[in-house]
Amino acid sequence: MARFFMAGTNIKDGRAIIRGQDAEHIRVLRMRPGEDVVICDGQGTDYRCRLVSSAPGEAEAEVLEVVPCRGEPGVAVTVYAGLPKGERADFLVQKCVEAGASDIVFFNCERCVARPDGRSMEKKLERFCRIAEAAAQQSGRGRIPEVRYEHNYVEMLNLSMKAEAGLFMYEKGEGRVPMKQAIESAGSFKTAAIVTGPEGGFTEAEARMAKACGLTLCSMGERILRCETAPVIAVSAVMYATGNL
Amino acid sequence: MARFFMAGTNIKDGRAIIRGQDAEHIRVLRMRPGEDVVICDGQGTDYRCRLVSSAPGEAEAEVLEVVPCRGEPGVAVTVYAGLPKGERADFLVQKCVEAGASDIVFFNCERCVARPDGRSMEKKLERFCRIAEAAAQQSGRGRIPEVRYEHNYVEMLNLSMKAEAGLFMYEKGEGRVPMKQAIESAGSFKTAAIVTGPEGGFTEAEARMAKACGLTLCSMGERILRCETAPVIAVSAVMYATGNL
Repeated sequence: MARFFMAGTNIKDGRAIIRGQDAEHIRVLRMRPGEDVVICDGQGTDYRCRLVSSAPGEAEAEVLEVVPCRGEPGVAVTVYAGLPKGERADFLVQKCVEAGASDIVFFNCERCVARPDGRSMEKKLERFCRIAEAAAQQSGRGRIPEVRYEHNYVEMLNLSMKAEAGLFMYEKGEGRVPMKQAIESAGSFKTAAIVTGPEGGFTEAEARMAKACGLTLCSMGERILRCETAPVIAVSAVMYATGNL
Repeated sequence: MARFFMAGTNIKDGRAIIRGQDAEHIRVLRMRPGEDVVICDGQGTDYRCRLVSSAPGEAEAEVLEVVPCRGEPGVAVTVYAGLPKGERADFLVQKCVEAGASDIVFFNCERCVARPDGRSMEKKLERFCRIAEAAAQQSGRGRIPEVRYEHNYVEMLNLSMKAEAGLFMYEKGEGRVPMKQAIESAGSFKTAAIVTGPEGGFTEAEARMAKACGLTLCSMGERILRCETAPVIAVSAVMYATGNL
């Protein structure tokens, strides 16, 4: 069934007025009165609606049912990822949203190759947000994950350590625990932070700082994962462990 | 550390003679005598070697240590995937190999959009095998996963039901269990089959056949996953569950 986020929609007295891009999308899909659509408020609630009319720029639907969105996982996982180059970042956003990530924060660190200036980062973020919205819509998520950028590594650590379970993926060194052990030791949690590095990984100093901030240094099975693959696998593991798969 | 598969290498009396592409690769990497490389036999054993000489077309190294490859998971997961279109298939191969899949079998089914003829499938498979080899090398796997094609759906089911844990990912319908429940009910296993559909998913008849063959119909958290994403997430979940993450 077609799903839309609320952006262009006004719901009042059991009627949904759909405007802008979404109304256009309904026309492109050649949907007819009588067909059902789901309109999601972006806060985890779905409005199941039946189309009443579709005209250029505006469609109208009748609200049949208001239900919690089933595609929204019960755990909020924020992905903190060292900003990768080019298409890897697009991929990371799309797949982490599908896998169920709550938000994505790209950050800058010592071995980041991509170091966009303010203007170019702004453009990148616009692009990432569009990818996140499309992926959320397509996969039936109940909210659109936010994508942000944090240029300060220490500030990123400050943010990530607020989660109940803070996991720092590190590909080498002593003192790491398997990711499974880290997740199981965290007990029951509703918020998690997954921190992954850029193409060149983290420096030892960065890993030490993360540990000092209370994050758990984790290994991921001794395979070397690409920087855009690691967060997708880590989010999947957390979803599995918390009963969301 | 640079890793190579054995293909062009001859190991004898503690010396490794590296020829062909791998010798060329060593030159491109500008590796010098005294640097270490790992040569993997593709059967799960790593030869840690120190470069003695590097010339056009041939390099020589001394074997320092013979160790089991740590990047090879302890469970053999074969991915059976309805053949997707275009780049989605490339992605699926690369990411499933990184995630730890043992082998990948693409198959044909009712809603497959991609239906290559014999000659074009042969070319596709050559390409997939190259992608699998590169991903295995890069991620430190101990063997190169095979990529095959099975045009007969029933034959694919026959193959997949031989695994100790057979999981059939189905995006709708009654009688499915959450993937986590399916994996936990399977108890301890060393082989698993993960079956995922093409872009349009499986038909009801196909799902019924799978169930009749003893595969467990699984849901994956009520999110609609793209056909190239679902197997990566499912492999990650199995790796997590079996202590390989």
